[in-house]
Amino acid sequence: MSGNKEFVKEITPQAVDFSRWYLDTIQKADLMDYSPVRGCIVFKPDGYEIWERIQAGLDRRFKETGHRNAYFPMLIPESFFQREKEHVEGFNPELPWVTEAAGEKLEERLAIRPTSETMIGHMYSQWIQSYRDLPVLINQWANVFRWEKRTLPFLRTSEFLWQEGHTAHATEEEARAETLQMLDIYAEFVETEMAVPVIKGQKTPLERFPGAVDTYSIEAMMKDGRALQSGTSHYLGQNFAKGFDIKFLDKDNQLKYVYTTSWGVSTRLIGALIMTHGDDRGLALPPTLAPIQVIMIPVGPPKMREQVMEKFDPLFADLKAAGARVKTDLREETPGWKFNEWEMRGVPLRLELGPRDVQNNQCVLARRDTGEKISVGLDEAVSRVQELLKDIQKNMFEKAVAFRNQHSHLDLETLSDLEKHIAAKQAADEVVGWALLGWCGDNACEAQIKETTKFTARVIPFEAPVQKKVCAVCGKPAQHSVWYARAY
Amino acid sequence: MSGNKEFVKEITPQAVDFSRWYLDTIQKADLMDYSPVRGCIVFKPDGYEIWERIQAGLDRRFKETGHRNAYFPMLIPESFFQREKEHVEGFNPELPWVTEAAGEKLEERLAIRPTSETMIGHMYSQWIQSYRDLPVLINQWANVFRWEKRTLPFLRTSEFLWQEGHTAHATEEEARAETLQMLDIYAEFVETEMAVPVIKGQKTPLERFPGAVDTYSIEAMMKDGRALQSGTSHYLGQNFAKGFDIKFLDKDNQLKYVYTTSWGVSTRLIGALIMTHGDDRGLALPPTLAPIQVIMIPVGPPKMREQVMEKFDPLFADLKAAGARVKTDLREETPGWKFNEWEMRGVPLRLELGPRDVQNNQCVLARRDTGEKISVGLDEAVSRVQELLKDIQKNMFEKAVAFRNQHSHLDLETLSDLEKHIAAKQAADEVVGWALLGWCGDNACEAQIKETTKFTARVIPFEAPVQKKVCAVCGKPAQHSVWYARAY
Repeated sequence: MSGNKEFVKEITPQAVDFSRWYLDTIQKADLMDYSPVRGCIVFKPDGYEIWERIQAGLDRRFKETGHRNAYFPMLIPESFFQREKEHVEGFNPELPWVTEAAGEKLEERLAIRPTSETMIGHMYSQWIQSYRDLPVLINQWANVFRWEKRTLPFLRTSEFLWQEGHTAHATEEEARAETLQMLDIYAEFVETEMAVPVIKGQKTPLERFPGAVDTYSIEAMMKDGRALQSGTSHYLGQNFAKGFDIKFLDKDNQLKYVYTTSWGVSTRLIGALIMTHGDDRGLALPPTLAPIQVIMIPVGPPKMREQVMEKFDPLFADLKAAGARVKTDLREETPGWKFNEWEMRGVPLRLELGPRDVQNNQCVLARRDTGEKISVGLDEAVSRVQELLKDIQKNMFEKAVAFRNQHSHLDLETLSDLEKHIAAKQAADEVVGWALLGWCGDNACEAQIKETTKFTARVIPFEAPVQKKVCAVCGKPAQHSVWYARAY
Repeated sequence: MSGNKEFVKEITPQAVDFSRWYLDTIQKADLMDYSPVRGCIVFKPDGYEIWERIQAGLDRRFKETGHRNAYFPMLIPESFFQREKEHVEGFNPELPWVTEAAGEKLEERLAIRPTSETMIGHMYSQWIQSYRDLPVLINQWANVFRWEKRTLPFLRTSEFLWQEGHTAHATEEEARAETLQMLDIYAEFVETEMAVPVIKGQKTPLERFPGAVDTYSIEAMMKDGRALQSGTSHYLGQNFAKGFDIKFLDKDNQLKYVYTTSWGVSTRLIGALIMTHGDDRGLALPPTLAPIQVIMIPVGPPKMREQVMEKFDPLFADLKAAGARVKTDLREETPGWKFNEWEMRGVPLRLELGPRDVQNNQCVLARRDTGEKISVGLDEAVSRVQELLKDIQKNMFEKAVAFRNQHSHLDLETLSDLEKHIAAKQAADEVVGWALLGWCGDNACEAQIKETTKFTARVIPFEAPVQKKVCAVCGKPAQHSVWYARAY
């Protein structure tokens, strides 16, 4: 809300302290604020609007693939958690409990949902009778709670916002196809609209969702080289169907358990966006998702302002009419201050117009991604803006891909190689990045990497750039090539 | 989900038992289901989609008037409720409390929000420093809890969905203007898109929001003659500003408390929609808000189906291209069964096409609102559908206005008149409706009407159809003409 004119100077450079840079950036750009409730943040309008655009892009894709939204109760009876053993073990340590309501102690404690497989499983058991009721393709936009010890705004908060899809199918094949379809939708959305490149793949058993048969995820590399799990899709097999007795009468007149899936992305995507594109000047938003795509700023001496506005106002109207999300900044601050402010807020394109520009029938366009300034004729300004927005979107994605490739290490073969690599990078104050390592399939080997290096198995990629021959820990033949990294 | 072919027959007629009719209708039309948590319902896809359309219509109007969305923590520290005396008294009896989280007892209990004036007041006190920070115009879409003793789906549930706008202003005048602006937006939306006529006005002190200086509401008459409060807008004065220390440095260099407002509508609007338009055949949805506007059903003998589909498919494509929300029903059930099913689900327009229609190059359009069947040429089908949808929207609103006027009683002068009126209507098994009565301004008189008749003061209308001269209870000069009714 309030305008601190010293915003930009106060952002800690990424190279000095990336965490500090992140916290500075999100507060100075007015995306969030801390709240009086431990681990809960306020999503301020500039932050929430990014979420609204993420919601719109995903919701459209969900509906195009036949899903419908619904809403299920947020409070879940304690007994429901007992019905799927791994699920209760996974979530129990993080649950907040309602024990009293309207002045009375409740007979059974109610958990605030950490995810809704149990409640939805219960309802599906009432709704599904016959193969004709299948598939059930439902999504929910909701708030969820996981009472975290260490929190980080957007990435890990006690309350967060997300969507959770929950589907039920007659066959394993169909449920598996759904699981992968939703992973593809996540990847396509995140890469296309957020310009954040992701690796698609499968989680190792140690990293699986509690109660899932198989968990798939998309993983993105942040600018500090860490991995951020940006979306997950779970094939749940018949685990929840058995726990909640979700059965259907099949065409062959047999009573069978359904196969279920669940899949979700959350407000942590806002964190992914910031840490993929941001730089020492602050936020950088890809045009497709940016609430403001073009900020228009009149420049030159105030006494010439009237003359400038004669061209400025129609240009604003033309850009708006052409569908660009454009805003003007006519405040009294200096152009230089405004340039900094809007760069910090991540607006992809700045349009400057001054008296000399008007004389030359041109304006200046400045790109947030490259810093480049381009003079363009006023007649072609609208079309050039549209071209540039597309080009910025493309360039931001390509830059992120290049960064990821540069810090993805394919040449490490053993745990010892990885340790040396980490030590060397840390000594040189360089980004450590990810390592592709062979894995024999044994949980113990994966665990040892974590214990030694804090690197965790992020994902077994569907398309590994190289196939590793031996396990980095035990030296036995590798079953998989796995991306390991420090994770958020 | 599952297809019970006996749906329609099972709906209790409105005249037999309106409550039963309501519960039958919402379950048979698959809008909701009960959940295992007391007073909490599941919003099933067909019910939730109505809410999504309500959200879209309102959200657009909020943004057009300069409001932005944000999201605040759901859990509110107990101490926050103590800061506004009336507020805590009003909501304390209904709160669910989180007392444990992650295996530990919390030091301070956290309430699940019943509304967010306190949390948002606290944040505003951090954000607002100067007159330059004002106005703050923020809205939140969220779930809220009020642990109700007696619940009714959509109308009164322990958890419900709503929006709550919270604004802060430098002057009383501006805050009052905002309060009334939002009431107007609610009324315009509800009348235009939901085709539900409303009375705008002010609440009496006994019916005010806990903590408000003035509460305004829109009230709608349901088909059983009861009133449903469908939206409220509160002028909060400086009550919350003082409770939460929200001060700003004004242009005159004085530190002043802000003036705040709050305003909300909830998923009870779904109930308003159903009970305004529904009839013994089930739901009836106004075209503007209906998820499906036109249901297309092929008729005639199956062996002629192929011939019919040659015209059916292009007509579907044309309607879709013209922007109509159209769906086809090609299932194997009989046309008669399908007609009933889609009438019960409230689809405004049915399009039938059979072999004879194809021969005559026409189709049949059947209106849900009037039951009228109209033959129209295939060439003009698209434009006629569009005209009819507009006409249905208009007609549904007018029918609802006529119903309300018919059951709005202006000729009752005393409490005794009202008692006789109620007794007579009940004896004749007729709708009791509303009564406009004079009120001296004394809470005791209002309370006596409630005690004697269960009628409550719904609203002091901005535009009373007649001005009452004396208080219906004490006979003193009337300060106001007040709509009294049984309320949901």
